[in-house]
Amino acid sequence: MIPSGVRVLVFDVFGTVVDWRTGVASQAGQFFKRNGHDAVDPYAFVASWRRRYSPAMEEVRSGRRPFTRLDVLHRENLDATLQEFGIGSATVPAAELTELNLAWHRLDPWPDVVAGLTRLRTGFIIATLSNGNIALMTDMAKRAGLPWDANLSAEVTQAYKPTPEAYMRAADIMAVQPNEICLVAAHNSDLAAARKCGFRTAFVMRPTEHGPSQTSDLHPEQEWDLVAPDFVALAEIFGV
Amino acid sequence: MIPSGVRVLVFDVFGTVVDWRTGVASQAGQFFKRNGHDAVDPYAFVASWRRRYSPAMEEVRSGRRPFTRLDVLHRENLDATLQEFGIGSATVPAAELTELNLAWHRLDPWPDVVAGLTRLRTGFIIATLSNGNIALMTDMAKRAGLPWDANLSAEVTQAYKPTPEAYMRAADIMAVQPNEICLVAAHNSDLAAARKCGFRTAFVMRPTEHGPSQTSDLHPEQEWDLVAPDFVALAEIFGV
Repeated sequence: MIPSGVRVLVFDVFGTVVDWRTGVASQAGQFFKRNGHDAVDPYAFVASWRRRYSPAMEEVRSGRRPFTRLDVLHRENLDATLQEFGIGSATVPAAELTELNLAWHRLDPWPDVVAGLTRLRTGFIIATLSNGNIALMTDMAKRAGLPWDANLSAEVTQAYKPTPEAYMRAADIMAVQPNEICLVAAHNSDLAAARKCGFRTAFVMRPTEHGPSQTSDLHPEQEWDLVAPDFVALAEIFGV
Repeated sequence: MIPSGVRVLVFDVFGTVVDWRTGVASQAGQFFKRNGHDAVDPYAFVASWRRRYSPAMEEVRSGRRPFTRLDVLHRENLDATLQEFGIGSATVPAAELTELNLAWHRLDPWPDVVAGLTRLRTGFIIATLSNGNIALMTDMAKRAGLPWDANLSAEVTQAYKPTPEAYMRAADIMAVQPNEICLVAAHNSDLAAARKCGFRTAFVMRPTEHGPSQTSDLHPEQEWDLVAPDFVALAEIFGV
């Protein structure tokens, strides 16, 4: 059943809106070619880079580290990942590393995203609710034509999901009650955290986010308010 | 001469992008009619409401008050202004006051704005740099079709212009040097503060912002990097 009273749709971005795995792997592959490391498997590389994502944010979530934007965390994780693959950061031109780190700003959306968001935007305020920083979300949206009304990412709320502050501050900033916001995400854990804050929840399937042999998030793990195969289907359900 | 190396254009909003005086006066006039106060001059009312704007922010800028978003300051100032005009807030339905306070979310842009921004957006990242809060900027942009790439307003930087933090944090968030950002504003004081932070500056004329007998900001008071009659002319100068 369509939850009533929803005024704002907020979206997880990495995995839900954009295909980070293919996008970063493609750019990493070019980086390896340019820098004489053709033997590295870019998909293994991006998997390792991404594995460091949540632990890095956990330092901030736990309070052990002051809020630090994702571009900085990504860069620290890039250096560690290169080292894991036997590539010393100091052996690569600094500008190449800066560019590779910006791969996360240049990701393509899943094929249904622009059409779906364009329809959803006619009935709702649509906003990011991502752990990405403002410049990252801005570059990504401009390049991919994502028609966001607002960016409520971690750098705005100064809190990384899934801490409750990330959701509650987003509702407060938009001046709505939590049950007037619906989180759209491909990740059950994100939706579970949002639901605990009183948000409405919509699960969208992204079964290849982690590649062809993905085992997580292949089906809804709770009775989310809505379940849709993609953003166009979600717009259909919402009748916009 | 066109300043070289500019990547981001940030815009003052109230007065530079939107005509707050006419927009708020029109909505205040309807409010007075609905609530039996036809005798109040809506232009005098909006002038008084707006006069309280800078002193309210000064409480935050001075550190005497923690950061408080503009919707809250506007509402406090609304109550004081109604009182000045002999209207007790308690005599008006609460929903009416809430709606009137949202008048600042529903302002029309000057006639050149959408066409100018649409062109400028093809060559630059365009963002708000306003003292308005995020929900206000979001509602305004959605209603008026303002094609911002990002919102760097006071609620994002947690600093009200013209404190240096408002400008410096915006540059830091966008990951650019101050001389890669150009502030577009109709107010010499805003441009002067931005220039002190190393920003490039573009003055756009809005000679009726304060009404037909405006005396301030009718001409550039310093040699700003660029001077243009409106946003379309600015796009022309930038060659986009």
